[in-house]
Amino acid sequence: MTKKIAVLAGDGIGPEITAQAVRVLDVLVRDGLEVQTESALVGGAAFDAKGDPLPDETLKVCESAQAILFGAVGGPAYDALPRSSRPEQGLLRLRKHFDLFANLRPALVYPELAEASPLKPDLVAGLDLLILRELTGDIYFGKPRGIHVNDAGEREGFDTMRYSESEIRRIARWAFEAARKRNRRVCSVDKANVLETTQLWRDVVTEVARDYPDVELSHMYVDNAAMQLIRRPLQFDVIVTGNMFGDILSDAASMLTGSIGMLPSASLNASGFGMYEPIHGSAPDIAGTNRANPLATILSLAMLLRYSLDQEAAAVRVEQAVRKVLAAGARTADIARPGEKVLGCSEMGDAVVAAL
Amino acid sequence: MTKKIAVLAGDGIGPEITAQAVRVLDVLVRDGLEVQTESALVGGAAFDAKGDPLPDETLKVCESAQAILFGAVGGPAYDALPRSSRPEQGLLRLRKHFDLFANLRPALVYPELAEASPLKPDLVAGLDLLILRELTGDIYFGKPRGIHVNDAGEREGFDTMRYSESEIRRIARWAFEAARKRNRRVCSVDKANVLETTQLWRDVVTEVARDYPDVELSHMYVDNAAMQLIRRPLQFDVIVTGNMFGDILSDAASMLTGSIGMLPSASLNASGFGMYEPIHGSAPDIAGTNRANPLATILSLAMLLRYSLDQEAAAVRVEQAVRKVLAAGARTADIARPGEKVLGCSEMGDAVVAAL
Ligand SMILES: CC(C)[C@H](C(=O)O)[C@@H](O)C(=O)O
Ligand SMILES: CC(C)[C@H](C(=O)O)[C@@H](O)C(=O)O
Repeated sequence: MTKKIAVLAGDGIGPEITAQAVRVLDVLVRDGLEVQTESALVGGAAFDAKGDPLPDETLKVCESAQAILFGAVGGPAYDALPRSSRPEQGLLRLRKHFDLFANLRPALVYPELAEASPLKPDLVAGLDLLILRELTGDIYFGKPRGIHVNDAGEREGFDTMRYSESEIRRIARWAFEAARKRNRRVCSVDKANVLETTQLWRDVVTEVARDYPDVELSHMYVDNAAMQLIRRPLQFDVIVTGNMFGDILSDAASMLTGSIGMLPSASLNASGFGMYEPIHGSAPDIAGTNRANPLATILSLAMLLRYSLDQEAAAVRVEQAVRKVLAAGARTADIARPGEKVLGCSEMGDAVVAAL
Repeated sequence: MTKKIAVLAGDGIGPEITAQAVRVLDVLVRDGLEVQTESALVGGAAFDAKGDPLPDETLKVCESAQAILFGAVGGPAYDALPRSSRPEQGLLRLRKHFDLFANLRPALVYPELAEASPLKPDLVAGLDLLILRELTGDIYFGKPRGIHVNDAGEREGFDTMRYSESEIRRIARWAFEAARKRNRRVCSVDKANVLETTQLWRDVVTEVARDYPDVELSHMYVDNAAMQLIRRPLQFDVIVTGNMFGDILSDAASMLTGSIGMLPSASLNASGFGMYEPIHGSAPDIAGTNRANPLATILSLAMLLRYSLDQEAAAVRVEQAVRKVLAAGARTADIARPGEKVLGCSEMGDAVVAAL
C-alpha cells in the first residue's frame, strides 16, 4: 500500500524549504519508494485562509498519513493575535492530538562546519548528542492555568507543571533504548531539589534504569546542565528531560553546533507516527528570497523515512547525499564563511538531488 | 550605630571563602568602617548540629543584621535527606523569609581572564551583563504542589508557576532602574507564547516600561534567550526574568565568562536588606584543601557594602583591590593557565588584603 506523507509547509521560509525536501522525496519515489504526499495549511497561513492555525481539513489530511513533514510557523504578522489563534498553536495542538511525546533533537557538528560554533573548536569537535524532550506534558499542557484576579484584587497568572508516572516512564524508556544504539549514557535533567514534579521524574527514571543495566544513568539539575552544555558539551550522549527544560536546553545545544540551519527533529508517538521538522524557525526576514538553508528539512525527511516509514536505506541515502554536498563545499548563506560561494535554497536542493 | 553583618559560611568551601572576605572586612573596620560580624550555622552544617538547615538561632542573627554574607551550602552527604531537610532549603527559606525578590547576578569578563571562556574570544571580550532574577515567586514557591495518586491510580507530580502583578512590577522597576545606571537596555525573558503566567509577565513589564521612556525594552522567549546568550552575549545589557528561567539563564551566563569562581551575587528586598553570595557552589571535592577561589565571595562583600550598607567608597576599594591582584597575576587554581603560579585560598586573601 502506498504510504502518505502530509506536507505542512506553514509560514515564512516554510514553503521554500519543504519544496526542496519534496524534490528529494520525488527522486526516491522515481526509484521505487511507494510514497505519496498531500499538502495542507497550518500556522499563520491556515489562520489567514481559514481563521484557525490548525483547521479540521488539515487534521484530516494528517490522520490519513503515516507522517507529517512540517516546515515552520509564525511571524511578526501574527504577534498581536490572541494566543489561541497564533500560528504556534497549530504546532502545539498537532503534538497533543497525535500524542507525539518523544521529541528527538540531535545536535551534531559536521566536520566541515565545526568553525561555525561559537565555542572553541576543541570543545565541540565531533559533537553528537541527542536531546530527548518530552513533548506532550509538563507546564505546556498542565491544568489549571490562566490569569485571574486574586484575593488581593490584583491580576495573577498561573500555570501547572504536571507529569504522571506513565508519561515519565515512556520517555525514559525511549531514552534508554536510544542510548543502547549510541554510547550507552543517559543524563536525565530535572530540578528535583526544588520541584515535586521533577522529584517524581527522577524517581521514575531511576526505576526504569533498572531494566537497562548496560546503560549508565546520571542525573543533573537543569541549571547545571545549562552550564555543562557550554563548558563541556562532549560529556553528553543522550539527555532526557521534560517539555519546558527540553525547550530551553535543546535550543542551547543547537546553537553550540553553530549550524542551526542543519538540524532536523522528530516528534513521535508510541505507534511510530511522527512529525518531522527543522529546528530553526520561519525566518520571516528572508522568506521568499531563496536564501534559506533547506538541509535541516531534508535531514528531517531522512528521519521521517527512518522512524515512520521504516526505510532505513532511503534515510541513509538522503543523509549521505547531504554529507556529500557539504564535503563538496556547497553552502547556503547561513553556513558560508566570508568569501565562500553561496547557493540559494533551490540550488542547494539541486545539489542534494544530484548527489543522491 | 555599628551595623551588623551575619556571616553564614555553610558547607564545603563555604568556611574558607567567607574567612577571606571577613579578613578584607577587618581591614575596612580597622580603617574606620563601623561594622561588626556575627556568625551562624546554615545548610548541612546547621542540619548536622541542629537537625534543621535554617535553625531559629540563625534566623535571629540574620534579623538583627543589615545584611547576610553567605558562603555556600550542600554536598553529597545530604543528597539522601528528604527535601525539606536538605541544605538548599536553608537558602530558599532565607530568600522567602526576608522577601529577597531581586537577585542580581552580573556576568563580567575580566580582561585578564577572557581566555578562560568556552566561547571564542571576540564573542565575550568586554562582556558585562546583569541578570536580574526574581527570587521569591514563580514555580519555586507557587502552591499547590506535591506528588499524589491521580484518578488513573498512578503517581503524579505537580507544581504551580504563579506571579501576581505586583510581584512582576517590583522586579521590572528594579530592572529599569538598574538599566538607567548602565546601558539603558532591558531584555525581558518569558515564554508568553505558551504560559499564561509569563503572558501576564510580558504585559506588566510593558506597562512599567512606560515610566522609563529613556530605557529600551525588548522581549525574548526563553528558548531563544538561551540561544542568544551563546550566539552573541554582547547584545545584552540587563536581562530580567522569573525565578525558574533566571536560575537556568544566569548559570549559563556565568559559564560564558569562564570564571565562575569570580562572580558575586546579591539578593535584595525592598528595604535594602540583602544576602550576598558567590554564584559558585560548595565544591565539596576541594573543601578543606585551601584551593578554593575566594574572589567571588570578596566581590560579594563589595556588593554588600554598596547595596545594604551604602558604603560605595568601601565597595569600590574592595573591587579595585581585586582588579589589582588580577592584573598583578595572582591566580587560584580555577583561573590559572597551565604553567602559571597558583595561589591557595588564603594566599589569595593575603594578596587582596595587601592590595586594599
Ligand atoms: C513555538 C513554540 C511553541 C515551540 C515550543 O516551545 O515547544 C518551539 O519553541 C519549539 O521548541 O518547537
Ligand atoms: C540550590 C538551589 C535551590 C538554587 C536555586 O535553584 O535557586 C541555586 O541553583 C541558585 O541558583 O541559587
